[in-house]
Amino acid sequence: MPPEGRAAARKKAMIDLAAALAHVVADSRPLLPRRVRLEEGRGRRLVEPIVADVDSPPWNRAMMDGFAVRSADMVDGAGESAAPMSLDVVVDLAAGDASSLEIRPGSCARIMTGAPIPVGTDAVVPIECAVEGTAGVHAGGVVRLHDPRFRAGQHVGLQGCAFRAGAEVLPAGTLLTPAAVGLAAEAGATHVVVVPRPRVAILSTGSEIVAPEALPRFGQTRNSNGPMLAAAVAALGGEPVALGTAVDRPEPLRAAVSQGLAADILLLSGGVSAGDLDLVPDTFRRCGVEKIFHKVRLKPGKPVWFGCFTRPDGGGRCLVFGLPGNPASSLVCFDLFVRPALASLLGWPQGRLSLPRRRARLGGGAKGAEDRPVYAPCRLESGDGGSLVAHPLPWTGSSDLVGLAVADAYLALPAGVRRAEAGDDVEVVMLRDDSERV
Amino acid sequence: MPPEGRAAARKKAMIDLAAALAHVVADSRPLLPRRVRLEEGRGRRLVEPIVADVDSPPWNRAMMDGFAVRSADMVDGAGESAAPMSLDVVVDLAAGDASSLEIRPGSCARIMTGAPIPVGTDAVVPIECAVEGTAGVHAGGVVRLHDPRFRAGQHVGLQGCAFRAGAEVLPAGTLLTPAAVGLAAEAGATHVVVVPRPRVAILSTGSEIVAPEALPRFGQTRNSNGPMLAAAVAALGGEPVALGTAVDRPEPLRAAVSQGLAADILLLSGGVSAGDLDLVPDTFRRCGVEKIFHKVRLKPGKPVWFGCFTRPDGGGRCLVFGLPGNPASSLVCFDLFVRPALASLLGWPQGRLSLPRRRARLGGGAKGAEDRPVYAPCRLESGDGGSLVAHPLPWTGSSDLVGLAVADAYLALPAGVRRAEAGDDVEVVMLRDDSERV
Repeated sequence: MPPEGRAAARKKAMIDLAAALAHVVADSRPLLPRRVRLEEGRGRRLVEPIVADVDSPPWNRAMMDGFAVRSADMVDGAGESAAPMSLDVVVDLAAGDASSLEIRPGSCARIMTGAPIPVGTDAVVPIECAVEGTAGVHAGGVVRLHDPRFRAGQHVGLQGCAFRAGAEVLPAGTLLTPAAVGLAAEAGATHVVVVPRPRVAILSTGSEIVAPEALPRFGQTRNSNGPMLAAAVAALGGEPVALGTAVDRPEPLRAAVSQGLAADILLLSGGVSAGDLDLVPDTFRRCGVEKIFHKVRLKPGKPVWFGCFTRPDGGGRCLVFGLPGNPASSLVCFDLFVRPALASLLGWPQGRLSLPRRRARLGGGAKGAEDRPVYAPCRLESGDGGSLVAHPLPWTGSSDLVGLAVADAYLALPAGVRRAEAGDDVEVVMLRDDSERV
Repeated sequence: MPPEGRAAARKKAMIDLAAALAHVVADSRPLLPRRVRLEEGRGRRLVEPIVADVDSPPWNRAMMDGFAVRSADMVDGAGESAAPMSLDVVVDLAAGDASSLEIRPGSCARIMTGAPIPVGTDAVVPIECAVEGTAGVHAGGVVRLHDPRFRAGQHVGLQGCAFRAGAEVLPAGTLLTPAAVGLAAEAGATHVVVVPRPRVAILSTGSEIVAPEALPRFGQTRNSNGPMLAAAVAALGGEPVALGTAVDRPEPLRAAVSQGLAADILLLSGGVSAGDLDLVPDTFRRCGVEKIFHKVRLKPGKPVWFGCFTRPDGGGRCLVFGLPGNPASSLVCFDLFVRPALASLLGWPQGRLSLPRRRARLGGGAKGAEDRPVYAPCRLESGDGGSLVAHPLPWTGSSDLVGLAVADAYLALPAGVRRAEAGDDVEVVMLRDDSERV
């Protein structure tokens, strides 16, 4: 085959970014819901609704400190000012007290906020309404109310006015915000059914890779992908499972990959380009992972590999990503492909799977590529009238995290744009929301 | 004292929301920075910069699979097409291999991505450029390159081109994004100095309060504040410390409060209004907590108490919040007062301490109050041209979480607005960002 034909054949194996993303999304489905403790469910969406097992309030509750009275004894609230009146205080009720004593006409109960109002009463007169000197009376004394204009139900939380036992207080799909967690607790839901946090196994391969705590010798490189991908997984609500590093030899690699296939997603980095020691695609094959694509028209990140492993015992599936070993390439592939997969497993709505894209004005020159779209780090600045200005950050290539570490967004230049200039209208892929840029 | 005078005196003790917030912020200072494992630091801001202990790349690294060559042997990249040339392959180098062999003129090394290029070489020719049949040659063979136009440095990651040992790769203040975590790991930072997660003790008081797993008997109420406040603390990056419940008796309450004062913030709910059993302010005093304010012109949330405890042994301080027992009141006070305190302790910038406020058009009638601002749950909808429409949610009062559980924002009606109508321009306090509303 002439050189050009060979190159063409190589290129043919590559697919477009949009096609690759479509494959990933098609193969990513929400995980089976699981019952977890309410505490573990916070920040996630309910798969099953929550039905209350009690009324709220659970009984007629005093909402202020004062005196529980019979409204029939009182002057109607709509009337004009009335003379002070006296009532016998027959019982003292604190929160937690549950008296069965009935209050008769001309009597009342001294009551604290949070206590059930006793039988016979239907309103609470706040302590501020007692004539001075009688505000402190207890059972056995007489309280004088300087203005007894109160209506039935006043300062009483009526049983069931917020919700009734049997009511669906939180429908399926509700995000468990702090208020929703409080409501679930009140309604008796000690457990909730949510999509579980996907377990994401993370494996860095390459005989040159050493742990971050080591001082690398000549020829060695620290494992930066491991901590970086774990942080990215955790930030999205996944559960990173660190598998450490594996050398470029078939048996250790196969053992590590097999372990990773027990997770919902396996992120392996390194060993996916074209050389002799690219054992990774071969290892995936031997482990029974079905290849969906290998190589995407994208810079950086071209060598990315994606496949799917179906556990033989009906035990679910594992999405398998072979990410490039260079950390910047690895992160771009995470953001473009792994993030949508993880978000799908978490049951996020379709519109939120990918990072949001916006238009911006370029603040300085940037280099693109003829054959592939380029994703490069940039900083964003607010321009006139809510517009954005994208300033390219210094970037020396696919192993360079310096610019990405402080980037607000990727500057996304389409294939064919070899160079963009200051002032050009460009697309950016948002890495942080606006508030994080402050 | 005549009734009006008494009421006026009570009102005088109350302070305005803005004054209360100013007190809270004035007493909240970032916690002392702590050295934590890199993994624990993710998502937080560096207090101390990270200085690299290695170059990046750490040596001249092959960026593609192919042949490490001497550019002096090659045809200059700028020239026109050249005839194929042959080179002796003298060594095979995989990632992790660190050969000291020098490559002499007319020779080359077979090399894999990630390996150091050997002494004497300064460029990598990708495997795709080998004439078919010679692409697979190893040490001892001869490779033929069909197009030997390469420049020095081509496909080589030059030592130190991203950063040099001794360089500050992440300045103080940098947010530890996934890329920053990867960069820190590469630079040798196994630990980072960040503001620690504030420990927030959470105690629900009231003899009527039972654990969420209990079925409340007559007069009892489930502890919904505990799980709710824990969720709110965790969502902001604090570490909730659940202290459970305490009955309304001096000794158990004092013991629980003393335990809570070991935390950075103590959130106690219940027992802060005006009655006989409001042991809480008294208990705070006995425990040495300095009162800063008690009662704020706010609905719901009026009884809120705030103070500060300074540990006698120079062991730092604890901010103490007495929140109302009713869960909706408690949550409003959390969002308006506790959140800014927690964010201050976390070292967030001033402009982000409080929830963001925006203008909206009211989508339905809403009730305010003459004497206090009212915070009520509402749902937001996008209107014309990026505007917002705020729809009030049903809400029966300070114990009702039903509306708050699905609210996007608080509708904030200022004091004196007894009623607002559909179409009015109103202020809303954002509880979720836009993306969470999808």
